[in-house]
Amino acid sequence: MAEHERSILVVGSLAFDDVETPFGHARNVLGGATAYFCLAASLFAPVRLVSVVGEDFPDEHVQLLAARRVDLEGLQRRPGRTFRWTGRYRHDMNVAETLATELNVFADFHPRLPDSYRSSPYVFLANIDPDLQLEVLEQVESPTLVGVDSMNYWIARKPERVRDVLRRVDVITLNDAEVRQLCDTPNIFAAGRQLLELGPRAVVVKKGEHGAAAITRDGIIVVPAYPLEVVYDPTGAGDSFAGALFGYLSQGAGYSQEALRRALVHACVVASFTVEEFGVSRLAGLTRAEVDQRRELFRGFVAFADEPVAARLDTAPSAV
Amino acid sequence: MAEHERSILVVGSLAFDDVETPFGHARNVLGGATAYFCLAASLFAPVRLVSVVGEDFPDEHVQLLAARRVDLEGLQRRPGRTFRWTGRYRHDMNVAETLATELNVFADFHPRLPDSYRSSPYVFLANIDPDLQLEVLEQVESPTLVGVDSMNYWIARKPERVRDVLRRVDVITLNDAEVRQLCDTPNIFAAGRQLLELGPRAVVVKKGEHGAAAITRDGIIVVPAYPLEVVYDPTGAGDSFAGALFGYLSQGAGYSQEALRRALVHACVVASFTVEEFGVSRLAGLTRAEVDQRRELFRGFVAFADEPVAARLDTAPSAV
Repeated sequence: MAEHERSILVVGSLAFDDVETPFGHARNVLGGATAYFCLAASLFAPVRLVSVVGEDFPDEHVQLLAARRVDLEGLQRRPGRTFRWTGRYRHDMNVAETLATELNVFADFHPRLPDSYRSSPYVFLANIDPDLQLEVLEQVESPTLVGVDSMNYWIARKPERVRDVLRRVDVITLNDAEVRQLCDTPNIFAAGRQLLELGPRAVVVKKGEHGAAAITRDGIIVVPAYPLEVVYDPTGAGDSFAGALFGYLSQGAGYSQEALRRALVHACVVASFTVEEFGVSRLAGLTRAEVDQRRELFRGFVAFADEPVAARLDTAPSAV
Repeated sequence: MAEHERSILVVGSLAFDDVETPFGHARNVLGGATAYFCLAASLFAPVRLVSVVGEDFPDEHVQLLAARRVDLEGLQRRPGRTFRWTGRYRHDMNVAETLATELNVFADFHPRLPDSYRSSPYVFLANIDPDLQLEVLEQVESPTLVGVDSMNYWIARKPERVRDVLRRVDVITLNDAEVRQLCDTPNIFAAGRQLLELGPRAVVVKKGEHGAAAITRDGIIVVPAYPLEVVYDPTGAGDSFAGALFGYLSQGAGYSQEALRRALVHACVVASFTVEEFGVSRLAGLTRAEVDQRRELFRGFVAFADEPVAARLDTAPSAV
């Protein structure tokens, strides 16, 4: 399979982040959904980025992405300042508190795909205005697999547009709170089943420190989070999860329930690295070998041992 | 192995529960930690109960337990009324809100073990005053495996006595909030490691709809919850989890990391049945065959597929 046959197009934000967690503070660091997505996905496949930055976006960030073979032809550079997010995590690191959002150049962003991107077989619509996500879908030519993320902001303000997008994709990735909000039910499996009716092949629910689940027509997949003793900064966990998910899926001979299962495991593993350091620090230096090594450790933590012939109350007890 | 060589002694409460959830209301139903524990454990092994009830405790509840081969010689019947718990679960079914607790005959309870119980190889101290848990430990003769549960009430009021108990047991089962409270850290794996220093073989953390984890000197085990679309009443999930855990462990040729892993899976499966109906309704009719059948479904949801030779960026991509 040629490289371009597994290229992943991602469209969404690049940003400067100011993040505070119980473990410290990161100011003015590279952020935005696509930064995390690109670094994660590029462990598995070539990535093409469509995003926008301002004049203040430093070359070092561009070079970091370029060094990971991220195609930056679709990166727009505009007069003005780059999107900036200021957030905080307190004791419960599952919940990000947004302190400030400065859209800056992102306010007028319209995704424009370079001609070379239009035939990308894998397309991921990171969390942006659903109207912009639809603009992207107008510009791509029969992709193999399309994924989408969204957030509470759009689900509250443009629920019908969000649903319009969901109807046109193969894989929905949302966190558990977003799924509950969108479907107005507390149960993620019931919600997932409801979203399947919109047409996607898989609803992937990200549950932070509790792992992930997928609901498909073929059944359910549940994957716990990789156990970590310290989480320094949850920022980007979900975006790097999605990057690894799509990265893994793009490598294979095709989408299947088993491929999705393996992709989910890799997504949980990559996300576990992301949160071990602030911002993209850990992800930027991560290698595929480290991912594979942790995946094998993870397998040991999760493995369902084969069941021995069990002692039953109704039969003679036997040694197990 | 003779039946008595795998008998499980459990000490704790029997109660009347009044429970309200978003799905309905159960009034005056059989409750208390040991009701759930006994019904779950007795799927795997004979159980011996030490508890106390009042004159209002109906024969039908006694008969329900007796029919499951629960030895009731240690059940005290006292003048007065049975312990009563009134609680409510709202939208977030992970959190029980206690509306009223009437200790009644439980206020003066002191566990007294019949002579026939003292050599029980498996002992489980359900959630009661840690001073009473210590009284039980004074009355047993060199058990094979001792487990304990506790709750936020005792951890807040008698933290040192709780720790005294934890020093004398093999398996600690607590929910995630209790572990965090006891260790003053938000991370359950760090907390588990801290509790291991008190001496137990395993710290089992119950995470409700997110499953369970065990921290031992041999490593970590993580098990997601069995995926359910509807949870009617979470009451007793943790107690039936503990019952199945000890029931499973009592069957085997001995405690090991692998036995613990399989026991955790069975514990999650049994708890998943418990919450599908109000009170003990589902558990009371549950069979071992149903447990085994759901365990196999669960295996399919969780299984880590073997990793195929993966396409790498640094090697020629290959079909997966």
